[in-house]
Parts: sequence; structure tokens; C-alpha cells
Amino acid sequence: MAAIRTRIAARGLGPGDRLPSIRALAAGMAVSPSTVVEAYDRLVAEGVIRARRGSGFHVATAEPAPFRLAAAEAARDRAVDPFWVSRQSLDTEAAASKPGCGWLPADWMPVDALRRALRGLARGSDALLTDYGGTHGSPALRRLLAGRFAEEGLAVGPDQILLTGSGTQAIDLVCRFLLRPGDTVLVDDPGYFNFRALLEAHRVDVVGLPYGPAGPDPAAFEAIVAAARPRLYITNSALHNPTGATIAPATAHRLLNLAAAHGVTIVEDDIFADFEPDPSPRYAALDGLERVVRIGSFSKTLSASVRCGYVAARGDWIEGLVDLQVATAFGGPSPVATDLVAAVLAGGGYRKHLDEVRRRLSGARRATAQRLGRLGLVPVLMPRGGFYLWCRLPDGLDSAAIARLALAEGHVLAPGNVFSVSNSAAAFLRFNVTQCADPQLDDALARAMREAARSGGGA
Amino acid sequence: MAAIRTRIAARGLGPGDRLPSIRALAAGMAVSPSTVVEAYDRLVAEGVIRARRGSGFHVATAEPAPFRLAAAEAARDRAVDPFWVSRQSLDTEAAASKPGCGWLPADWMPVDALRRALRGLARGSDALLTDYGGTHGSPALRRLLAGRFAEEGLAVGPDQILLTGSGTQAIDLVCRFLLRPGDTVLVDDPGYFNFRALLEAHRVDVVGLPYGPAGPDPAAFEAIVAAARPRLYITNSALHNPTGATIAPATAHRLLNLAAAHGVTIVEDDIFADFEPDPSPRYAALDGLERVVRIGSFSKTLSASVRCGYVAARGDWIEGLVDLQVATAFGGPSPVATDLVAAVLAGGGYRKHLDEVRRRLSGARRATAQRLGRLGLVPVLMPRGGFYLWCRLPDGLDSAAIARLALAEGHVLAPGNVFSVSNSAAAFLRFNVTQCADPQLDDALARAMREAARSGGGA
Repeated sequence: MAAIRTRIAARGLGPGDRLPSIRALAAGMAVSPSTVVEAYDRLVAEGVIRARRGSGFHVATAEPAPFRLAAAEAARDRAVDPFWVSRQSLDTEAAASKPGCGWLPADWMPVDALRRALRGLARGSDALLTDYGGTHGSPALRRLLAGRFAEEGLAVGPDQILLTGSGTQAIDLVCRFLLRPGDTVLVDDPGYFNFRALLEAHRVDVVGLPYGPAGPDPAAFEAIVAAARPRLYITNSALHNPTGATIAPATAHRLLNLAAAHGVTIVEDDIFADFEPDPSPRYAALDGLERVVRIGSFSKTLSASVRCGYVAARGDWIEGLVDLQVATAFGGPSPVATDLVAAVLAGGGYRKHLDEVRRRLSGARRATAQRLGRLGLVPVLMPRGGFYLWCRLPDGLDSAAIARLALAEGHVLAPGNVFSVSNSAAAFLRFNVTQCADPQLDDALARAMREAARSGGGA
Repeated sequence: MAAIRTRIAARGLGPGDRLPSIRALAAGMAVSPSTVVEAYDRLVAEGVIRARRGSGFHVATAEPAPFRLAAAEAARDRAVDPFWVSRQSLDTEAAASKPGCGWLPADWMPVDALRRALRGLARGSDALLTDYGGTHGSPALRRLLAGRFAEEGLAVGPDQILLTGSGTQAIDLVCRFLLRPGDTVLVDDPGYFNFRALLEAHRVDVVGLPYGPAGPDPAAFEAIVAAARPRLYITNSALHNPTGATIAPATAHRLLNLAAAHGVTIVEDDIFADFEPDPSPRYAALDGLERVVRIGSFSKTLSASVRCGYVAARGDWIEGLVDLQVATAFGGPSPVATDLVAAVLAGGGYRKHLDEVRRRLSGARRATAQRLGRLGLVPVLMPRGGFYLWCRLPDGLDSAAIARLALAEGHVLAPGNVFSVSNSAAAFLRFNVTQCADPQLDDALARAMREAARSGGGA
């Protein structure tokens, strides 16, 4: 037994390899065949080797475990797991309410324009309805996007824009292009939780940058960048998720210079841009896509069911990104999807729809802040746009405990630590002001907070 | 200069770090400040350091090169590059014909059923048109798929099926789940070229398995698996791309046993399944998804514009795949896309459409084989279904040279070596019998073959 074990350990025998025949091993080791039979039988019992009918004994195949995302697999508290919030939000159909989710309800979306676009598409060309489409995605939609960027002061040609299956897939492509396993990436702390899950899938180290009501701290950025040498910094510069903060022009300028000095590329996820009352400073507009990659999608303002995202980047990077998208998704995004998005964007009603959404959001932020205030939940800041309120709990309460208790009553919340690389946001909850319509929510929250307080904060 | 270089090399000074001031370095090294100024100036000229206004000299940031796929970047002959065929096929709108591409023309697709499905979708619920949808993808479509699998003898529940953005994205997810950088993966040689590009993006080693008219050679499989210890074997078992071959039941059984013995998982890309006149042996049906992952999509028979693929796998693997899809794409595939696919599949006309396509394909294969035969291009086998003919060129002719010459006349061909890991298929071309309608094609091919012969085969 020891002889076989040693040969397996030294990789002289690999998984699936045939062991010496009983006769040969007995002769070689000067023992009786029955000794070898007994040793083999015991090794079979231990699972080290296997008997195969008609072909003797073989080393058992110890298959490597699949790559399960640690965040998803952790046996620890699922309520502070980024996946918990994603999957509860996406899969909990029967929830009473989902104040923790990251999108608008259907009745806030431009449904009539989508129906019109679908009817128009039903009259589209045969090729549009059946072909793969070009690798960069719909030229019409890329021209529309370039026009919108120009209004913000970002001059890019349609050939610097690549359409993708979603905003997340756009970031995933950029990570494939710019990262290697073992690299370090900087994210905001607190920051969007799915960035952490995405980065884990790329096998890179994630470092958090303290992010306050005024945005990131340039001094902290400089210190962390010098020490950790990240390759990328992934952030939302406008209407930051979860805080709703907007960076100051001076901060954007300084971070950009520091990024240039230290060779950091900034991935600016601009998914909430259309909710701004007027454009705030953008890394991409300041930098002109030299060291900034701009990401976006239409899931928040147009449709998350018609999936489409984009990357705007240096022209010489776009070709590498196209190659990676062909390799990993074949072709560009769905032409059906990009045609629908282009039809809605080009229709006159989309800007009016956005104006209306911004007006409604402004009222909903105020009203929800008042409601939450009565429960002792205080927004850290009043965002200038968007649908998030990042609220501090009364002292000593743990948001994960409250989220667990609220879920038992059918309310999906977003507890602070899912947003925090350093796990320093247990005292916060992120609320989506468009998903708080359920009148039962206030009572459910109050009960959960009382219950958490009773059990010592729940921490 | 040497002192600064040494400190950079030893990583005492990293990219972006500030160099000692001129005064301090001069004092420390007991040289005059002007000596340091000259040294710094020369290092600036060499690009080793940079002067920054108001903050002295800094180590230049030598940024790591982005990850460009070698196959895509190679300065070598683009006509034997897997990307060349993909991108020419997808992007060359103005081509006279694309006999090298891998899909049916629009007039072979169920366009009327798609238009009906789009009109139906325009009357769908607000939530269907705007929400992300669940993480596993449309339950209705998964039930339909489970029903179709059952007809083939593969019993799986809808919870063992995950919908994805495309068939390629399904394989990409499986690779993320099962592979680690540096692993080895087995592919058919010849085999589908995009598998190689996809696997390169996963930073794994690719080993080719000789694939003949009767399918893979079990003895070669055993020898290669024992030597190279691949983690996965990715293949089309039905109507193999590019050869059109079908494996024999005994081969499927033997490979499955060898895969089990050596811990190899088989990824069965069943994208051409619906073109078969009757089902051929399937790894998934024999094995029951114990060590087989089944992949598919609707791009070949329904629409490549409405993108949707799927994975059928062990139930405990599906959850890990869902986590990876949420992390890298957020949510499942587009509900708009999955609803369209389900509507067409559930409509009574789809089976009739497939019957008609199979009948037309059968005629097109015969007619194209005759046309090509007159040019001296002989199919290695006559496939029992599908649209590919894998043709051998007359002796001494190089398919890459012919593809280059044909492209100059607007015809996109698929030269053999893009399918061959071992570059042993220069004497072959893959033809798509549905994309050979252009009457100019025969003359263009004849000219390219004569020209290639004149220049010594073109090799």
C-alpha cells in the first residue's frame, strides 16, 4: 500500500493510470500475490484506486473542484453576501417589496415606446431578424451614442464604441482585456456589490477606496494606489451606487492625474448618467478616453429585458475587445436588442420620458427620506438624482440582521456590508425609492429594527 | 543613471514613484547637482522616468500590455487565423458570397414565425418588456427544452437547464466554472475554430484529437488523455463542425468510459442537433449529464439575431454557473429574447420549418457536392445532415492561399487550417452549401485554384 501511495504522491502514477498487475507487483516486491490483492482491495476501499472490469486496477481520478465564487459559496451569513441581494432581487417573484433591488418598477419604464419599437421590428428586414449582425454592434445605435457623448463634451467616433450584451458584460470584457489573474483592482468602499463578484471571477485582488458623501478621498487614493499598485479603478462617477454621491470637478481632475502617474486605468460605469438633472464631472469627458474606459447600458432607463450595454474606449483597444467578444460570445450583441434600443432612443419620446422620470424621482426621494426618517433611518446625503438613498441605522443596529428579519416578511433589503470590501458598512441600508410603494414596508421595517435591537443589535 | 536604474530594477522604486530631489541625490552621491540633472534628463529621454510640472521626476509607468488574443494579433497569415473567418463572415457586408460562414441565409430561417412572435411580444406584460427576469432564464423555455431532451432519451428537469446569452456564452461559462489557467483542454482536429479562440481567452492549453470521417479515434483519445490529462473535451457529437461526421454508438460509449476513467468532462456542443434527420448517439443521452455538459442554441435554426443559448448540466453545477452568470453578465439572458424563442418553438410551425429545412439541405448538399466535384474539390464524407461539406483540394494546393485570392474577388472562404490545432488541414476547405448560391463562385474558385497552383500551391 505504501509503495503505491508513494508512487501516486510523486506523480509517477496519475489519475486513471493502470496499476502494475498483481502478479508483476508481487514478483517485483517479493511478496505473495495475495498480499498485493489485499493491499489493492484496501486501497479500493479507501477510494485511492478503482477496479475496472477486465482491465485491472487504476488510480482513482481525484477531479479538481469546479470554480465556485467564494462569495456565493460561503456558508457564512447569506444576508451580507453580494449574491444574496442579486439573487433575491432577481428571483424572488413573490416578494411583497424589493427596496433593496437596483432598478425601476415596470410602470416607470417607457413601455409604450417599447411596444411601438417591437411592432416596428416585426416589419424589419429578414436579415435583421435572423443574422448575427456585425461584431461592433448596430452602427445606428453607435452613432446615436456618439452624438449623446458629444453633448457631454466627450468627442468619440462610432468606431470607438463597442456594443455588448449588457453593462456588466462590457466590464467583464474590459477585465478580460486589461487584467491578469493576481492583479489588483480598486473599487469604492462602499461601492456596487456586483463589481466584487465579477472581479472574483477574474481571480484578481480587490482593494477598497474609502468613499464618502463627497466622493472618493484623493489622499487615500494616492496612498492606496502607491501601496497596492492596482491596474484598474472601477467606479460610478455620477450618482454613485450605493451613496448617490457625485464627485467634485477638482476630485475628478486630481484622481485622473494620480491615475496617470501610477498607470491606473479608470473604468467609469456610467449606468445612472441619464438620471442626472444636468451632467456632473466625468472622468471620460476630462480625459478623452486616454486612460478612461466608459461603460454604460440601457437597463435602468429603457429596459433590462432588452439587454444591451456598451464600452467606449481607445480605438486601438476596441479591436482587442472585439476579438475577445467574438471568442467568448460570438458576434456582437443581439441585433434585435440593439435595434429596439436605437428605435426607442431615436424616438422623440425618450427625452420626455427621462424628464418625467427625473421629476418623479425627485418627489420619491423626498417622500421616502421623510418616511425612513420617521423610523430613524437617515440618508447620509440627499442625492441630486437617481433612486438610491444610503441610510444610516440608529446606533447599534446591524443591517444584515434587519435584512434577514425583513425577508421573512417578504421584503428584500440591501444591507450595507454587501457594498463594503472592508465590511465597515453594517450600519447602513441602501433603499430604492421607487420600490418602497408597499404600505406594509414601514411596519415591517419597524418590527425588524425592534427585533434586531432586542437581540443586541443582531450583530 | 545606474543608481536609479538599479533601484527601479530592484523594485525599490515603482511606476509613478517620485525620484529623490536633484539636491538630495547630488548630496547623497557626492556629485554635483548638474550631474544629477544630466542623468535625469537622459533617463527622461529614454522614457525610464518622467518630469512632472511642479512635482519633480517620477518613474515612468510601464503599463502591462492588454491581453490580446494571440490568434487575433498574430502578424502571420490572416487567412489561417480563426478570427479572420469569424470577422470576415460577420463584418463583410459587401461580400459577393460567404461559403465559409457558419449559418443559414435569412431566407432559410422561420421569418414569418419570428414576425408573429414579435407582434405577440408587443402585447406582452410591462414586466416582461422591462424587467431583468430570473437568473435561470424563462421557465417556459426551459420546460420546452426539457421536453425536447426527453424525446432524445435525456431525462432532465427544467432546473438542470440554464439559459444564456448564446451558445458560445454557455461554453464560456462552463469554462469559467471548470477550468483554471494552465489547464489542458482537448478539442477535435479538425474542429470548430472558435473553440480555440475561446480557450485562449481562458489561458489554457489546447490539445487536438485527430478526428476522421468516422469521428474521433478512441485509441488516440486514450493515449492523448493519458499523456496530456485534459480537464475537458469540447466537441460536436452530431453533425460535427467542420466535417459533418457523426460518431458511432460504440465510439461514444468507449470515449465516455475513458473520460470517466481519466476524470475528463465532455462538453457536448449540440448546436446542429436540429438538422439531423434522426438523432445520432449523444454523450449526454448515454451518460445522463453525470460527466457531460450539454450546450446548445437557436442561432442556426431559428435566429442568430435573437440571441439565446443554454447549458444542461448536473443540478449542483447549475447553481455555480448561475452565480458566475450573475457576476459576469448580471441576471439571465434577455427575457425578450427567451420569450421570442419560446413562442417560435411552441408554435406548431417550427417542426414543419425544420422538416422543410432538412429537405432543402439534403438537395443543397448533393447539388453543391456535384458543383465542387467538377472543380476537383471532393467532400471527405457526405454528411447525413447539416450544411457543411469538408472538401479536399487537388494535390499540392494550399487552402489559405486560395482563400486570400477568393477574398480579393469578394468570396469569404473557410480554409482548413483555421480548424486545425496541428495545422494539418491546409489541403481542405469547409463549404456551407446554403451560401454557395452566387453563380460567380465557381469561376472565382477555379481562378483562385489555378492562381494558387501557378505560384507553387501557394504554401
